[in-house]
Amino acid sequence: MYNNYFMPTRIISGSGCIGAFAAELMPFGKTAMLVTGAASAKKNGSLDDITAALKKNGQNFFIYDKVKSNPTVPCVYDGGAAAKRGGADFIIAAGGGSPMDAAKVMALLACRDIPESELFSGNYGNRALPVIAVPTTAGTGSEVTQYAIITNDNAETKTIIATPLIFPKIAFLDEKYLTGLSHDTMINTVIDALSHAIEGMLSVRAGVVSDTLASSAAKIIISSCGDLEKGSLTKEQYAGLLYASTLAGMVISNTGTTVVHAMGYSLTYYKDISHGRANGLLLGRYIEYVRDKAPALCARVCAAAGLKDEKELKIKLASLLGKPEQLTDAEISHYSEKAAVTANVKNGIIPISQSGIETIFRDSMTQT
Amino acid sequence: MYNNYFMPTRIISGSGCIGAFAAELMPFGKTAMLVTGAASAKKNGSLDDITAALKKNGQNFFIYDKVKSNPTVPCVYDGGAAAKRGGADFIIAAGGGSPMDAAKVMALLACRDIPESELFSGNYGNRALPVIAVPTTAGTGSEVTQYAIITNDNAETKTIIATPLIFPKIAFLDEKYLTGLSHDTMINTVIDALSHAIEGMLSVRAGVVSDTLASSAAKIIISSCGDLEKGSLTKEQYAGLLYASTLAGMVISNTGTTVVHAMGYSLTYYKDISHGRANGLLLGRYIEYVRDKAPALCARVCAAAGLKDEKELKIKLASLLGKPEQLTDAEISHYSEKAAVTANVKNGIIPISQSGIETIFRDSMTQT
Repeated sequence: MYNNYFMPTRIISGSGCIGAFAAELMPFGKTAMLVTGAASAKKNGSLDDITAALKKNGQNFFIYDKVKSNPTVPCVYDGGAAAKRGGADFIIAAGGGSPMDAAKVMALLACRDIPESELFSGNYGNRALPVIAVPTTAGTGSEVTQYAIITNDNAETKTIIATPLIFPKIAFLDEKYLTGLSHDTMINTVIDALSHAIEGMLSVRAGVVSDTLASSAAKIIISSCGDLEKGSLTKEQYAGLLYASTLAGMVISNTGTTVVHAMGYSLTYYKDISHGRANGLLLGRYIEYVRDKAPALCARVCAAAGLKDEKELKIKLASLLGKPEQLTDAEISHYSEKAAVTANVKNGIIPISQSGIETIFRDSMTQT
Repeated sequence: MYNNYFMPTRIISGSGCIGAFAAELMPFGKTAMLVTGAASAKKNGSLDDITAALKKNGQNFFIYDKVKSNPTVPCVYDGGAAAKRGGADFIIAAGGGSPMDAAKVMALLACRDIPESELFSGNYGNRALPVIAVPTTAGTGSEVTQYAIITNDNAETKTIIATPLIFPKIAFLDEKYLTGLSHDTMINTVIDALSHAIEGMLSVRAGVVSDTLASSAAKIIISSCGDLEKGSLTKEQYAGLLYASTLAGMVISNTGTTVVHAMGYSLTYYKDISHGRANGLLLGRYIEYVRDKAPALCARVCAAAGLKDEKELKIKLASLLGKPEQLTDAEISHYSEKAAVTANVKNGIIPISQSGIETIFRDSMTQT
């Protein structure tokens, strides 16, 4: 009945945008900590563009490049301490979801001593260092969300930290950072964005604005699936897919995600399946579940995504992802039990029980 | 090449949303000034809902209900002084564009002594009282923009005050406030929103996000035109049109408007034609001008708006608006000269000269 939309990040896009809009970084202070993974931001040119912009502005910076995929609690504390030690006034994160999510938590930890036992408590005070986000994959949408997903070894899953304090101040979208991504990474991250768009339309928190953005994101992705699979994306398609992932990020910043993400976290935590692939492997069967329970909703979502029907989605996903990894019965049971108690499950328009989740796991992960 | 998107207003929607989300008003302070026109906010129930929410919160308020259509410089200074005198911590505006725009400028003037000679200077300091916006028409989009349009008697036109300081903090969208609007007001305001969506797609500042929002807004409006004309809108259609006007406001907050608005200001200033009607009378001929100069752009915009072609738009507008007011040759010449030098003109993808503007005025305003 009621709906709530909020997304205060400035989005600046276009090839070369960091250099062209370097002045936008000036208000954030004298010293930036740049957060990246070990290599990709150096290879794809984003780190060079950021450092050139800061030098042009006369701003100081230092680099924290120790973020690995699926960042951990020790990593974000280490980075938070580095930010304090270096006197960072703001943080610029370049990379996929991992550096951006890690940087957001570092931005909180630089301003507040949060015991590790309270990191997922939701009590984050009223201040974080400003974060500037430079996505270099077309998947996470973290550049426009208030979320950071951190590997939580105590709970053996990935856990969301959510606070408006960590909405990036600016997202710089430059598609040229994507062109060197591996074929698999490009596919997996784009499928993550597609999952955000579709899950967003199936969320109890969906509304007119989020549905509008989700439809646009999904249509861009669906129309590029063929070239994505062939590895023949044009510059314009890279730009389109980067925008699609940002649009889909705007969606989930308002709708959250559903059971698909909750299920995917176990595939990533226990089986080391990349986040986007994990969601994609489950999404096709999930949309069939929605079709069985609410055919009109399924048809509306498919049409909004530019799909003839849910079968087309399943075929496209299977074609992009290839053969799924296998799970044992014990794994399916364990992961289903974990997924069933998440907040994501309650977030879906269509209720689903633990046995429904088991069915989706089984049908998705044991195909030959 | 580059694009910039920013819209930090929280949008809360649904019938009864002010009461349900009254707590959202708490952080803004002890005392609110409520800004309305003389009568409509009392009649449509919005003032009652706002005062009930504030009473529930234990917040104080006082009412400034002297805003007339097309608010003037003396009005905003009077209201700014009232806000200071009453110790307002924040402002809640309920109404169409006039109370919302006036309230935004009052919010600036309550925090800073700006001489009248500098009101349109762009120099507004770094603070304004927080503004909460409650639109009660489906047209202006002011609830999600950084603009206030004020009648500027020195320049004999309406002039824009634009600063991110006056983005409303929250927009409350409740369609029940619209149901008592007169047939003409409903048509005129909806056409203003349609003009925002279409002009936004024809702006040099258009981008993926704004085009996505504009397409959604225009499609909602186009699909409701028949019932809008018949005066047989359902509750769902009122809600849809209110959302469409907000989506279109999000568009122009990023794209600005084009020559259509620049031309319309003279029709309002000199001929007292309502703002939305003024734009609508000109929009049909303007889209033909775009078709002649850039047929592919015109076709793309029409398709995005859910229109077969530009002829369909012109027919729909003519049917909704009826016979246009007449202008003399001297008036056309005078208004064209004024419009030709505005920033709005440079904002259009398709360049237009003063004589092009004269042609649009002549063809639009002298039909029989």
